[in-house]
Amino acid sequence: MKKIVAIIRPEKLTDVKNSLIAIGAEGMNVVEVKGRGRQLGIKERYRGSNYCIDMIPKTRVEVIVKAEDLDKTVDAIVSSARTDEIGDGKIFVSSLDNVIRIRTGEEGKDAI
Amino acid sequence: MKKIVAIIRPEKLTDVKNSLIAIGAEGMNVVEVKGRGRQLGIKERYRGSNYCIDMIPKTRVEVIVKAEDLDKTVDAIVSSARTDEIGDGKIFVSSLDNVIRIRTGEEGKDAI
Amino acid sequence: MKKIVAIIRPEKLTDVKNSLIAIGAEGMNVVEVKGRGRQLGIKERYRGSNYCIDMIPKTRVEVIVKAEDLDKTVDAIVSSARTDEIGDGKIFVSSLDNVIRIRTGEEGKDAI
Ligand SMILES: Nc1ncnc2c1ncn2[C@@H]1O[C@H](COP(=O)(O)OP(=O)(O)OP(=O)(O)O)[C@@H](O)[C@H]1O
Ligand SMILES: Nc1ncnc2c1ncn2[C@@H]1O[C@H](COP(=O)(O)OP(=O)(O)OP(=O)(O)O)[C@@H](O)[C@H]1O
Ligand SMILES: Nc1ncnc2c1ncn2[C@@H]1O[C@H](COP(=O)(O)OP(=O)(O)OP(=O)(O)O)[C@@H](O)[C@H]1O
Ligand SMILES: [Mg+2]
Ligand SMILES: [Mg+2]
Ligand SMILES: [Mg+2]
Repeated sequence: MKKIVAIIRPEKLTDVKNSLIAIGAEGMNVVEVKGRGRQLGIKERYRGSNYCIDMIPKTRVEVIVKAEDLDKTVDAIVSSARTDEIGDGKIFVSSLDNVIRIRTGEEGKDAI
Repeated sequence: MKKIVAIIRPEKLTDVKNSLIAIGAEGMNVVEVKGRGRQLGIKERYRGSNYCIDMIPKTRVEVIVKAEDLDKTVDAIVSSARTDEIGDGKIFVSSLDNVIRIRTGEEGKDAI
Repeated sequence: MKKIVAIIRPEKLTDVKNSLIAIGAEGMNVVEVKGRGRQLGIKERYRGSNYCIDMIPKTRVEVIVKAEDLDKTVDAIVSSARTDEIGDGKIFVSSLDNVIRIRTGEEGKDAI
C-alpha cells in the first residue's frame, strides 16, 4: 500500500481529480497549504500575477493506492497537474503498513 | 514508533478524543480536510442532508504512538468513530524513523 | 529521502523558515493545525494567555530533504523553534520511497 502526497497548483485540482477518476482512483483527501520549492527570491506566477516566492498557496492531495497502482496514479497526477512553468508542484511517495475501513473493520488492500 | 492518520466525520471528533484519552493516548494533531472514498456519484449523509459525493468535509486526526500501543489505539478510534453508514472514514498506519521533543531534545519512544 | 514533520508554535514559523534558509533547505509546505501533547489538563501559554490544554493552534511544517541533510535540518528546526516552555512542539521523521518534480518529471534525490 502506497501513500502519494501531491502538492499542486490550486487551480489544477479539478483536472487532477478527473484524471484520478479516469484511472479508477476515487479515494483522496485534500487540504490547502502554503509552500515554496527551490526558487527562493525568484518570481512565481499565482492567479495571473507574479509573486516573489515566500509562501504561495498550494493544494495538498493525499491518495492511498495499492502498490500495483502506484505508477499509473503518479503518471495521472503528473500529466494533469503540469503547466511547464516553475511551481507546478511535487509528489512524495511513501509506504503504508496498514489501512482500515472504519465502517466494516476491513484491513489492508481490501480497505483501500 | 507508528503514525496513525484517521480521516473521520467532523462530528465524531469529540468521541474520538475521549476514546484516545481513555487509553492514555493524549498527543494528537488535527486538521480539516475534504475528501471522498469509493462511492463516487452515490449520496453520503453530511450534517443531516444527503450529498452526491464529490468532496465532503472530514477531519484528519494524526496520532503518533509507541508500536506496542498501535492496536489499542486503532481499536479506540474505530469504535468511537463508527456509525455504520458509508463515509465513516479510514485509518492509515505507517512507521516513523524518529520523534524529537523540541523543548528537551529527547528522541525516540521517550519523546512520544 | 526523509520527510520531517515539525509541529511548532505559530509565532515561531518565521524563525524556523529563516533557520531552514540558512542551511539551504528552501522547500517546505505549511498548514495550520490544532493539537495537544502530554499535559492534558495543565495550562499551556498561547499568545500571552494560559489555556487549559484541550487543542491549541500549532503550525505543521513539512520539509523533504536528502537523507544526508536530515540531522542538520532537524537541528535547525529544534534550535529555532525552542522557547524552553511546554508546548514547544514535536518533530516526526519518516522515510520516503520517491520524490517527483511535476514540471520536469525528475525523480529521486534530484527532484528534492
Ligand atoms: N523539499 C520540499 N519539502 C516540502 N515541500 C516541498 C518541497 N519542495 C516543494 N514543496 C512543496 O511543493 C510546492 C511546489 O513546489 P515547486 O513546484 O516549486 O517545486 P520545485 O522543486 O521548486 O520545482 P520547480 O523548479 O518546477 O518550481 C511548494 O510550494 C511546496 O508546497
Ligand atoms: N484511498 C484514499 N486515499 C486518501 N484518502 C482517502 C481514501 N479513501 C478514503 N479517504 C478519505 O477518507 C474519507 C472517508 O472515506 P470513506 O469512509 O468514504 O471510505 P470508503 O472506503 O468509501 O468506506 P465506506 O464504504 O464505509 O464509505 C474520505 O472522505 C477521504 O477523505
Ligand atoms: N503523540 C502525538 N501525536 C501527534 N501529534 C502530537 C503528539 N504529541 C504532540 N503532538 C503535536 O505537537 C504539538 C506540540 O506538542 P508538545 O510540544 O506539547 O509536546 P509534548 O510531548 O507535550 O512536549 P512538552 O512537554 O515540551 O510540552 C501538539 O499540540 C500536537 O499538535
Ligand atoms: Mg519551484
Ligand atoms: Mg465512502
Ligand atoms: Mg506539551
